[in-house]
Amino acid sequence: MMAPDLTIEDLFSKEKFIFIAGPCAVESEEQVLETARFLKTLGINFMRGGAYKPRTSPKSFQGLKEEGLKILAMAKEETGMNIVTEVMDSDNLTTVTKYADILQIGSRNCQNFSLLRRVGELNKPVLIKRGFGNTIDEFVQASEYISGAGNSQIIMVERGIRTFENATRFTLDISAVPVLKERVPYPVYVDPSHPAGLARYVEPLSLAAVGAGADGLMIEVHPEPQEALSDSKQQLNFKQFELLYKRVNALRDTMSKF
Amino acid sequence: MMAPDLTIEDLFSKEKFIFIAGPCAVESEEQVLETARFLKTLGINFMRGGAYKPRTSPKSFQGLKEEGLKILAMAKEETGMNIVTEVMDSDNLTTVTKYADILQIGSRNCQNFSLLRRVGELNKPVLIKRGFGNTIDEFVQASEYISGAGNSQIIMVERGIRTFENATRFTLDISAVPVLKERVPYPVYVDPSHPAGLARYVEPLSLAAVGAGADGLMIEVHPEPQEALSDSKQQLNFKQFELLYKRVNALRDTMSKF
Amino acid sequence: MMAPDLTIEDLFSKEKFIFIAGPCAVESEEQVLETARFLKTLGINFMRGGAYKPRTSPKSFQGLKEEGLKILAMAKEETGMNIVTEVMDSDNLTTVTKYADILQIGSRNCQNFSLLRRVGELNKPVLIKRGFGNTIDEFVQASEYISGAGNSQIIMVERGIRTFENATRFTLDISAVPVLKERVPYPVYVDPSHPAGLARYVEPLSLAAVGAGADGLMIEVHPEPQEALSDSKQQLNFKQFELLYKRVNALRDTMSKF
Amino acid sequence: MMAPDLTIEDLFSKEKFIFIAGPCAVESEEQVLETARFLKTLGINFMRGGAYKPRTSPKSFQGLKEEGLKILAMAKEETGMNIVTEVMDSDNLTTVTKYADILQIGSRNCQNFSLLRRVGELNKPVLIKRGFGNTIDEFVQASEYISGAGNSQIIMVERGIRTFENATRFTLDISAVPVLKERVPYPVYVDPSHPAGLARYVEPLSLAAVGAGADGLMIEVHPEPQEALSDSKQQLNFKQFELLYKRVNALRDTMSKF
Repeated sequence: MMAPDLTIEDLFSKEKFIFIAGPCAVESEEQVLETARFLKTLGINFMRGGAYKPRTSPKSFQGLKEEGLKILAMAKEETGMNIVTEVMDSDNLTTVTKYADILQIGSRNCQNFSLLRRVGELNKPVLIKRGFGNTIDEFVQASEYISGAGNSQIIMVERGIRTFENATRFTLDISAVPVLKERVPYPVYVDPSHPAGLARYVEPLSLAAVGAGADGLMIEVHPEPQEALSDSKQQLNFKQFELLYKRVNALRDTMSKF
Repeated sequence: MMAPDLTIEDLFSKEKFIFIAGPCAVESEEQVLETARFLKTLGINFMRGGAYKPRTSPKSFQGLKEEGLKILAMAKEETGMNIVTEVMDSDNLTTVTKYADILQIGSRNCQNFSLLRRVGELNKPVLIKRGFGNTIDEFVQASEYISGAGNSQIIMVERGIRTFENATRFTLDISAVPVLKERVPYPVYVDPSHPAGLARYVEPLSLAAVGAGADGLMIEVHPEPQEALSDSKQQLNFKQFELLYKRVNALRDTMSKF
Repeated sequence: MMAPDLTIEDLFSKEKFIFIAGPCAVESEEQVLETARFLKTLGINFMRGGAYKPRTSPKSFQGLKEEGLKILAMAKEETGMNIVTEVMDSDNLTTVTKYADILQIGSRNCQNFSLLRRVGELNKPVLIKRGFGNTIDEFVQASEYISGAGNSQIIMVERGIRTFENATRFTLDISAVPVLKERVPYPVYVDPSHPAGLARYVEPLSLAAVGAGADGLMIEVHPEPQEALSDSKQQLNFKQFELLYKRVNALRDTMSKF
Repeated sequence: MMAPDLTIEDLFSKEKFIFIAGPCAVESEEQVLETARFLKTLGINFMRGGAYKPRTSPKSFQGLKEEGLKILAMAKEETGMNIVTEVMDSDNLTTVTKYADILQIGSRNCQNFSLLRRVGELNKPVLIKRGFGNTIDEFVQASEYISGAGNSQIIMVERGIRTFENATRFTLDISAVPVLKERVPYPVYVDPSHPAGLARYVEPLSLAAVGAGADGLMIEVHPEPQEALSDSKQQLNFKQFELLYKRVNALRDTMSKF
């Protein structure tokens, strides 16, 4: 295993800007390894990928489950990626914990208080996404379920809320970045992919997140977005991601001089 | 145990209008038994009461847990109440299932797909509340997780959504009643207590629900609302509830002639 | 001219339940007269119909303007209808005032403060619709622009607000009825047509409005809804309206005994 | 009169990033002149200031009216500022047009179609703010009322929409920037002051707007914000504004190399 460029400690120091990238869902060994190798060329070593997928309809693709986790483990083995993947309930918590470096709590579980308490009892970083129907205040209180159980390795992710506007999939609440940074000591990231809903809006929302002061970005990338089994319209291809990556870094450099 | 006036079958026949009433949270034996006896005098034999409470803050009262379930069992034993109580996760599912006649899925768990699947595998009625950030479409798909797992004994409850209006705690989406009745074969109830937020709005919202065609109401009642450990402003006292009960029945009688 | 069954004074006494019905837009003499005669058979003598139409797109039908007002005047002359029609700006205020018995301020003009002040200076009833983006508090303050200018003949109409739910055109905020009745001394009506968006939801929303305590209803009716130049999906035909009318009255009778 | 650094043509070329700054309301000669002189030191020559103020309550400060316009004219005379000020209705259109270089249509008048048509008939730039209850689609159609009447000198301003979140005054819909830039050929600006509601959030929202690709910013600045007659919490003092100005320009420089 290669030495990763950044460590988990770097996440919590908030000194370096963090990218977490990867496909919406783990679909195949090839898809995941190809993505991991690509990210490595950019110096990114935090990779996302869903093995257990919370889908609105029971008829949609639900993820490869443990087989998906094993594929993520292969990517970690080969490229040194730190794995960020979602835990959906107490039942799969033990399994997911074996493979994940960072446990992700999805938007729909932001107020699943039982699950929050359970990940709070572990000694592993937890990335929690804001519920799309939750206020910032509720989001902060959700983090208190985790920290209250003993785990303060928390990353909070703004990923858009539900409003009357439907030109985008969700409305990115960009103001949540400065508000959260006042209220919690944790890193505050933005997921621009879910509010965008369309790949071409991901870059402007990412740059906006940098401007607003986010500590990192969590972005969906796929070798062939149009073939993806979920979120196919909003995932970036490698070329799009690379351009975004350079621009975000350029903006961050400027910001770091303020 | 007295013979109940209405049976679980009556819930699903949709021929009779159903009241589910009781305190927000089980607080004491006296509180629950007093309420059960009161409801019995009105011929109501479906009682709600939370033993496991999903609270926004980890510092708020979290419920009496299994002790609370035992208190509900006493009420059932003495008065024949059918017990409606909330299950929050797979961990307490077995325990809650022992005591509950109807399992309640709360608003914050409307898209807890793991939990939906689990209650879908049981042979017990499930009352599911709409997530306050969920569309009607998502709510219908949540019911498909339950029915898809084999359980079609479902009751769907509109309980208000989150909007910009803050004169009330949530905005009761009264239109959801006719829309849901077109889309699902299940009974559609309204919970007027949570959107109202204040006791004095519960009656008009209840009568509105009747007008909109709801099959039942789920209402918070407490012997001494001002002393309640949660939702104290929105719970009705017995006198308020009795008046509401008579008026709802009068309106339903009129509606039944249409 | 026949003596009308109800007078303007009846509107403000709040003792009788009021129906204001008629087409979205005045389209032709035949359409308006046919509707007026129909309403008269039911004893309804308040008729709505837009001559100046505020349309989202400049390319949509904008109304017949003064020609439309003259058609409304013919209906009034023949059937004794009291005319409710919309005023859009100071420019057409004088013209509209000549023909209208009740001036309507539309949802998009709820915070057109100049217009509110102008109608406040007249001695003519004003029906103001809630802005779909306005809180109840802002709606109440809009009425204060009218009353503050000297005119307290105000009718306030809840007509739905904008939310994330799109199964209906707008979300009828049924709770606004009891809240408004606490805060203003004016009659509070509900327009179920605009939130419904579809004719088949108009009746349940109307009956809900009665249950919530509304003082009246404002409903779109058209001889041939499918031919209407605007809002064709939500207008009721005569048969649908007549059934609704009977049911609303039956419910009101029951309510009046409370 | 001094030669302005930027001209009206520069607004529409979209080659230079534009700042429009100034107090919420014109309050006094001293306040306006002091602000104009300050802006001039930064090379800013577009100044905002409300003489006719649309206020939710009729009891709030309504603006100095024509006296306020005259004060703005003095600032223009002395410093060469281009004046941006709000027109509220057809009645004050003629007066405002005499003094304003750019006519502002406020959020509450975004669907005041009569007013849109009227400013569309003039040969003067129009800055239109998005209605806080309006979709992007409706906002675009509002611009079509202006352009359809013959005036294509339009600037569109995103200023926040109404959502359930109340940590900020409105929710800045940052995604509206890239969406609007696809749909209209006009400059797209952001007003960070109104969604922020608090001065300390104005800078992060401004930098976010730059990242999202906005063509300009419209910001409230006041010599002594705590003394302001309106919006006192969200106006920046000169020092805060100067820092923001430098940072925005630095970010823009970086962006301009993409």
